[in-house]
Amino acid sequence: MPYVTVKMLEGRTEEQKRALVAEVTEAVSRTVNAPQENITVFIEEMSKNHYGVAGIRMSDK
Amino acid sequence: MPYVTVKMLEGRTEEQKRALVAEVTEAVSRTVNAPQENITVFIEEMSKNHYGVAGIRMSDK
Amino acid sequence: MPYVTVKMLEGRTEEQKRALVAEVTEAVSRTVNAPQENITVFIEEMSKNHYGVAGIRMSDK
Amino acid sequence: MPYVTVKMLEGRTEEQKRALVAEVTEAVSRTVNAPQENITVFIEEMSKNHYGVAGIRMSDK
Amino acid sequence: MPYVTVKMLEGRTEEQKRALVAEVTEAVSRTVNAPQENITVFIEEMSKNHYGVAGIRMSDK
Amino acid sequence: MPYVTVKMLEGRTEEQKRALVAEVTEAVSRTVNAPQENITVFIEEMSKNHYGVAGIRMSDK
Repeated sequence: MPYVTVKMLEGRTEEQKRALVAEVTEAVSRTVNAPQENITVFIEEMSKNHYGVAGIRMSDK
Repeated sequence: MPYVTVKMLEGRTEEQKRALVAEVTEAVSRTVNAPQENITVFIEEMSKNHYGVAGIRMSDK
Repeated sequence: MPYVTVKMLEGRTEEQKRALVAEVTEAVSRTVNAPQENITVFIEEMSKNHYGVAGIRMSDK
Repeated sequence: MPYVTVKMLEGRTEEQKRALVAEVTEAVSRTVNAPQENITVFIEEMSKNHYGVAGIRMSDK
Repeated sequence: MPYVTVKMLEGRTEEQKRALVAEVTEAVSRTVNAPQENITVFIEEMSKNHYGVAGIRMSDK
Repeated sequence: MPYVTVKMLEGRTEEQKRALVAEVTEAVSRTVNAPQENITVFIEEMSKNHYGVAGIRMSDK
């Protein structure tokens, strides 16, 4: 605890994802005062045809 | 806001998904009085071996 | 199937939520060709102190 | 109702997933007194580079 | 890992929820061969006005 | 995009939640190179009787 899910478009590099998990964990640990070993991060990627704002999918723009 | 997630079996066409995002956005906008540009839709697809009702997966029927 | 989750700020009336569930169900049924009786809708409400864009919670604006 | 989501690392066999859906459905049915036909189970798999504990992804260990 | 979420209508007793967490954990552990101490269960309750099937909320039936 | 959900036990102060949203947004922005105004954070709180590890709810310990 806490459990963090980051949902974003696919395409980030492994290096970006590695840094994302590390730095989000630090930010959560620092602000809610939880030990880093108790923090879990999940990354969920979506493709552009499965994500739309204002009724239009990213893949249709 | 609002954020809408539609979880369904894989296999719909791109045309169906495009219409889904457009028409769900309109339905949400109309009923809760939110501007369309504030509405986000996510599609999540599942495969038949990852979805079961009554203890039996779709892929095992 | 499909399963639809609508996440939005609290404060809508029961009449708005009733219409939301009905009209989203119709939109999903029509666009992905699923019978209405197979469609499930979940509403999830969030409070303004649990939702932030650009690093600022709604409750802090 | 109820709806159960099991999120786990990819790599389980079909036989394990089949048993998972069956036995989780039984456990939920028995403990909350819901008929098995009303219970839905979703499996969500994650890859090791999308899952981290203590700031380190499984794929980086 | 795994992480299990059980979403259901509110109204179960504490005794039912306690048994639910225990028995679902056992079922997951047994079927996917994961140690019980690695398994997390979340319960999410919904109210009848936030849950609808076939376009009609439970609270409107 | 991205959308971040932080799920944790209830009980944090408003000051902690405000800092959580701000600092997680910065960490995500920095690591995946997304403008802060595109980042959304949701906080989801759970109670101790709805969260269990190793088959035992926090409220039963």
